[in-house]
Amino acid sequence: MNLPSAFGRYRPELDAALREVLQGGEPELLYRMMRYHMGWEDPDGHPVESDSGKALRPTLLLLACETLGADWRQALPAAAALELVHNFSLVHDDIQDQDRERRHRATVWAVWDPAQAINAGDALLALAHLAAYGVAERGVPPERALAVARTMDERTLEMVEGQCLDLSFEGRPEVSLGDYLGMVGRKTGALLDGALTIGALVATEDMHVVQAFGRCGRLLGLAFQVRDDMLGVWGAEAETGKPSGADIRRRKKSLPLVYALSAKGEERDRVAAIFGQAEMSDRDVEEIIEDLDALGAPEYCRSLAAAKKAEALAQLESVGLAAKDYRELQEVADFVLERTY
Amino acid sequence: MNLPSAFGRYRPELDAALREVLQGGEPELLYRMMRYHMGWEDPDGHPVESDSGKALRPTLLLLACETLGADWRQALPAAAALELVHNFSLVHDDIQDQDRERRHRATVWAVWDPAQAINAGDALLALAHLAAYGVAERGVPPERALAVARTMDERTLEMVEGQCLDLSFEGRPEVSLGDYLGMVGRKTGALLDGALTIGALVATEDMHVVQAFGRCGRLLGLAFQVRDDMLGVWGAEAETGKPSGADIRRRKKSLPLVYALSAKGEERDRVAAIFGQAEMSDRDVEEIIEDLDALGAPEYCRSLAAAKKAEALAQLESVGLAAKDYRELQEVADFVLERTY
Repeated sequence: MNLPSAFGRYRPELDAALREVLQGGEPELLYRMMRYHMGWEDPDGHPVESDSGKALRPTLLLLACETLGADWRQALPAAAALELVHNFSLVHDDIQDQDRERRHRATVWAVWDPAQAINAGDALLALAHLAAYGVAERGVPPERALAVARTMDERTLEMVEGQCLDLSFEGRPEVSLGDYLGMVGRKTGALLDGALTIGALVATEDMHVVQAFGRCGRLLGLAFQVRDDMLGVWGAEAETGKPSGADIRRRKKSLPLVYALSAKGEERDRVAAIFGQAEMSDRDVEEIIEDLDALGAPEYCRSLAAAKKAEALAQLESVGLAAKDYRELQEVADFVLERTY
Repeated sequence: MNLPSAFGRYRPELDAALREVLQGGEPELLYRMMRYHMGWEDPDGHPVESDSGKALRPTLLLLACETLGADWRQALPAAAALELVHNFSLVHDDIQDQDRERRHRATVWAVWDPAQAINAGDALLALAHLAAYGVAERGVPPERALAVARTMDERTLEMVEGQCLDLSFEGRPEVSLGDYLGMVGRKTGALLDGALTIGALVATEDMHVVQAFGRCGRLLGLAFQVRDDMLGVWGAEAETGKPSGADIRRRKKSLPLVYALSAKGEERDRVAAIFGQAEMSDRDVEEIIEDLDALGAPEYCRSLAAAKKAEALAQLESVGLAAKDYRELQEVADFVLERTY
């Protein structure tokens, strides 16, 4: 499935805004690490054309703004800011998960070291704030600019809370569906909530609408993460950039596993037994994937994601928008569920 | 030397503001790590009375505000915010430097693990922002509240740049005095600049005054770091909470060493030779300290710190303040130079 057209419409100006934030800067090492992470340079600082990610969050932010009839360019600094917050979290997550690869490239800590990678993440978060304040220079009144910044920090904090929960789940034998959704709502949902909240904040003073957009984003975030979890088990490495079955091997409590471990029967017991082993062979990983299929995990995940998407769009209807008003948001929501990368 | 009275005057309300930010919160682990780091709880979450640090940065911030005739309570949320930024940097620094102890206690990563400690630091930085926006609820106009937040981020970014430089110096055989001052101006100077800048921003619209206060803070930061470097070599563990000679053992390019390595003669060569060894014995550390003394490093450090302090106070004079107007800032500056902890 191709990216909806909204992604392409914003991308050139978004990229320009991001590059402006990360150009120059001293010490060079710090800024080079950030530009490398963004996919613009190799480790020596030479320009490369590389996968910079989909920029889902800024696209949603700008689309929310436009859907409500405002000029998306007013919100551009906040969109760049949110993409930087997302990338701050990726740089730190890669250290925490000891992931050596992302988007088919070595991660920042793997190229340099964990200590300097912590700095790269910290700098991205500080720069995200400095970018966000830029909305005040694009005609957004200062009270509203403060609300944008506050929203960004509230959602960033929630995301860190979610990351803390996610790491703590790795040590637990079982995680309930409720715990899983609580974690994912923070780790992934919070920033998508932030995207739609901020986009709406720039466009309207009606907090009723702003909050509905935020809920829409949170629910889309759940759908997005469910799809991510599916790709982590069944996705193709060539498309996702992550080794196939990687989430199983690291005993990640992703939704297919949470679902399987809450079931009954021999498949469930086999999955639990393999998860309890000290080592996992390639054959063990295949066995788990077969058991997940037998237990109906793919269908379960697909229907949960579809339900969250429907709830998400219902939030927009709840504040009087009709399908024709949010057609592009609908396209992005469809993409979130069907994407293979 | 005792803490000047300004520290005690603000402390109860500052502590209350900090505790309000870090009380409650989910997941409990994340907030418990932060409260532990602040010295309020043991690792299990039981209250303890422990060293929470001097709170130099918020004290300077509030004092700047008061020195300019404004109500320091208006600036209290920003003071709490700056203390949280400082503590964010300590939590991450301890991971980066692999320091297992701070203020006579195990560091956050040593009690939990580096991955969760990264989260604790990230959360402190997000919470710092949320705290800072609180000045808007204390009558600071929104444009000014944005300027406070922007200053905080600019100085935080500089601090991270300084930390990046500091780590990169560890791999270099020699560091010039200019490189050292450039690094320290960012790593330590930036946040003290931020303290005085923000305190002044709350009190006055005169940017001439605000900038002079910022420069005063930057220079005091240099003096503070020089004293810190002296304590890292000659300080008593019982007072500093750091093992004596620790900075030498880790080959830190602190000022006494930068000075010694830029000198000539047999003492300099001995220091360089020991620094070049794979291992350093207790006797080697003693030898280096003797050589530093012979080279006049203590006097050099003392006079550099005194010069920076004098320059700092001259900034205040430059905008028309007389000694009687900034008596308490002078007391803090004196303390910065004389402190033994």
